[in-house]
Amino acid sequence: MSLIVLTYLLETPGSVEALAAKIASDQSTGTFVPVPGETEELKNRVAARVLDLRPLPPVTMPSLPQQGSGPYNRGEADIGFPFEAIGTDLSALMTIAIGGAFSIRGLTGIRIVGLKLPEEFRGAYPGPQFGVAGTRRLTGVTDRPVIGTIIKPALGLRPPETAALVGELIRSGVDFIKDDEKLMSPAYSPLEQRISAIMPLVLDHEQKTGKKVMVAFGISHTDPDQMMRNHDLVVEAGGNCAVVNINSIGMGAMAFLRKRSQIALHAHRNGWDILTRHPGLGFDFSVWQQFWRLLGVDQFQINGIQSKYWEPDDSFVRSFKAVSTPLFSPEDCPMPVAGSGQWGGQAPETYARTGRTVDLLYLCGGGIVSHPGGPAAGVVAVQQAWAAAVEGIPLETYAKTHPELRQAIEKFGKDA
Amino acid sequence: MSLIVLTYLLETPGSVEALAAKIASDQSTGTFVPVPGETEELKNRVAARVLDLRPLPPVTMPSLPQQGSGPYNRGEADIGFPFEAIGTDLSALMTIAIGGAFSIRGLTGIRIVGLKLPEEFRGAYPGPQFGVAGTRRLTGVTDRPVIGTIIKPALGLRPPETAALVGELIRSGVDFIKDDEKLMSPAYSPLEQRISAIMPLVLDHEQKTGKKVMVAFGISHTDPDQMMRNHDLVVEAGGNCAVVNINSIGMGAMAFLRKRSQIALHAHRNGWDILTRHPGLGFDFSVWQQFWRLLGVDQFQINGIQSKYWEPDDSFVRSFKAVSTPLFSPEDCPMPVAGSGQWGGQAPETYARTGRTVDLLYLCGGGIVSHPGGPAAGVVAVQQAWAAAVEGIPLETYAKTHPELRQAIEKFGKDA
Repeated sequence: MSLIVLTYLLETPGSVEALAAKIASDQSTGTFVPVPGETEELKNRVAARVLDLRPLPPVTMPSLPQQGSGPYNRGEADIGFPFEAIGTDLSALMTIAIGGAFSIRGLTGIRIVGLKLPEEFRGAYPGPQFGVAGTRRLTGVTDRPVIGTIIKPALGLRPPETAALVGELIRSGVDFIKDDEKLMSPAYSPLEQRISAIMPLVLDHEQKTGKKVMVAFGISHTDPDQMMRNHDLVVEAGGNCAVVNINSIGMGAMAFLRKRSQIALHAHRNGWDILTRHPGLGFDFSVWQQFWRLLGVDQFQINGIQSKYWEPDDSFVRSFKAVSTPLFSPEDCPMPVAGSGQWGGQAPETYARTGRTVDLLYLCGGGIVSHPGGPAAGVVAVQQAWAAAVEGIPLETYAKTHPELRQAIEKFGKDA
Repeated sequence: MSLIVLTYLLETPGSVEALAAKIASDQSTGTFVPVPGETEELKNRVAARVLDLRPLPPVTMPSLPQQGSGPYNRGEADIGFPFEAIGTDLSALMTIAIGGAFSIRGLTGIRIVGLKLPEEFRGAYPGPQFGVAGTRRLTGVTDRPVIGTIIKPALGLRPPETAALVGELIRSGVDFIKDDEKLMSPAYSPLEQRISAIMPLVLDHEQKTGKKVMVAFGISHTDPDQMMRNHDLVVEAGGNCAVVNINSIGMGAMAFLRKRSQIALHAHRNGWDILTRHPGLGFDFSVWQQFWRLLGVDQFQINGIQSKYWEPDDSFVRSFKAVSTPLFSPEDCPMPVAGSGQWGGQAPETYARTGRTVDLLYLCGGGIVSHPGGPAAGVVAVQQAWAAAVEGIPLETYAKTHPELRQAIEKFGKDA
């Protein structure tokens, strides 16, 4: 019998074994009093079971505040859910194996730290339409990271002002430009007007130089029908990418979009921190990202080394490995997107810690736009930083013969 | 200028004022270095601002585990986002005002505890199609709570076995029957077969007695197109309600469904606990429920008094008040659904603490099904408990002349 196996990090003043057993029961066949018609045969067919339980040292501080005093016992429990009880529906998986477990009484911590899907999920979802190979093909970048930037300020520019900035960024030689995830279609910058103002610049540059800059427009909308109209506007204007706020729209809307999409879907995960920031609660990214990859994310933002956010570098590295590890085949890997506070200075460590790969989209906001020599020098500096990283030359050494990188180090490196 | 006002409970080893100001900046116009083209005029148009900051006593234990030692300063900050910066798009609101704030460095706790939408949201969303009045009309229950039950076990019954149970429940006189939220459309119980097996029993009973029991089928699916087909199956079979796992499908899919729905949408919020259980992190229900009410939830599960889950009674009472408080008009209130471990014994306290209203759907699983006299006696006992509560008669007194209630107290009351 095929199993969907979830690993739960559990914490309780009581018995971890009993808690794991309760989760398995509650989340499949259990009920609060025995009811007529409930037979052992029925239960056995769909009951979840604790497969393994690995004790961990107890802690004195509970993840969820408690009245009592510890210690709080901990353990990692593998619970197997029969495939027959869930099927391939991800919303059923989320409901049965994850959602309800967080409501159980008596636990002081619960975090989903592992998910192993059985072979039945192979081919059940479309996965990325473009992923790494498609992003490389569309951008024409083959032998280094795709280098991207973000239109700033996040909010407040009208379409002509945005287009003026984008024009300068296109001329800078950057490969990828995106709307800030917070920019969707407010009254002062309707998406349609933004596309109309920007895409001619992209196409004109392509005609002149052969290089088509990938511009990711914020198409997210609460209404999937409207989101599809937004998608269509991008396609009709010759665009090839969109920013999607996956957490805000939800799994269903992502499935809806992917089914109809003709462009690369760049996932911003804002809101994700709510689900992961406390180490004893929520999810590991390695679990959560599986849902979105099956649903079809092409490019996945995962912060970066020395980001400006709370996330430690180790966590970014784990996320990078997670999205770069095939679920069922290499084609189900999205392109990792390293961003937040990046300017090139993090290239050596990023390269060293992510398996010495250049298969990533490296996003620099101010790191490109605010380079002392202007955006074009900013792009060159980032390319130089990556060349140095790949060649194993310290940035300071490389910068001696590469003035753009030197300027970047002088401006941005002082805080590093 | 219209504002969308969010209230954040903040906790930090540093300055709460500085943290609030950083959220306002980061979540609207901020960026990590000043960039060309960013002018004060642009900023002013869309910048979020801290409107008020109410200090709270510091705490010694941080909500997010920290290396250092406290104290951790706390305060409640009202931050106003210009309506122009967001518009009425709820996914934009979630992204701009909520999602990103949880990623900020230096905080040790953040919880969204208030949301006040401006008049521009009036009429921007459909809201409940049925709500309290529609649920009463469809069930024919006018002067007491709608009494419901849940098919158990949660998983494992095949459609004929389910239909046999449902037939007995229909004959019991119950007003409402629902699939467990974990039952959607697994291979052993495809939704279509379940509907085909159950709905003739409902319609037959209606023809004989005039009473149409509302049966809520689990129509959730990752793919909104499939979810709509599931909805249509319910409609075509003469059904009038569906269970929707709102957290698993997400906001977009809920909007998609509501736009096309012809039936009452019964929201199960499983997974919600991840977002609310730690008192220093996540959301208050009073905030989160606003999104789903605007999107169109008709019946909202909010646990109950003495539930079997972690949620304290006070929290249930607050949730009840939240969903019963109009956002813009009384029609945008869904029917509150009190459930989990209910058997009638909680009726007096539920009634006393929720404003002495009977406008709720009162869900009893084992409390009805496992009544010593059978489900029909179980339904009568629950009705008796509510009659006693409304008349202000102690249950023990009322039970002296009402044997079904007495049996219920004897069986279920011993744990209470």
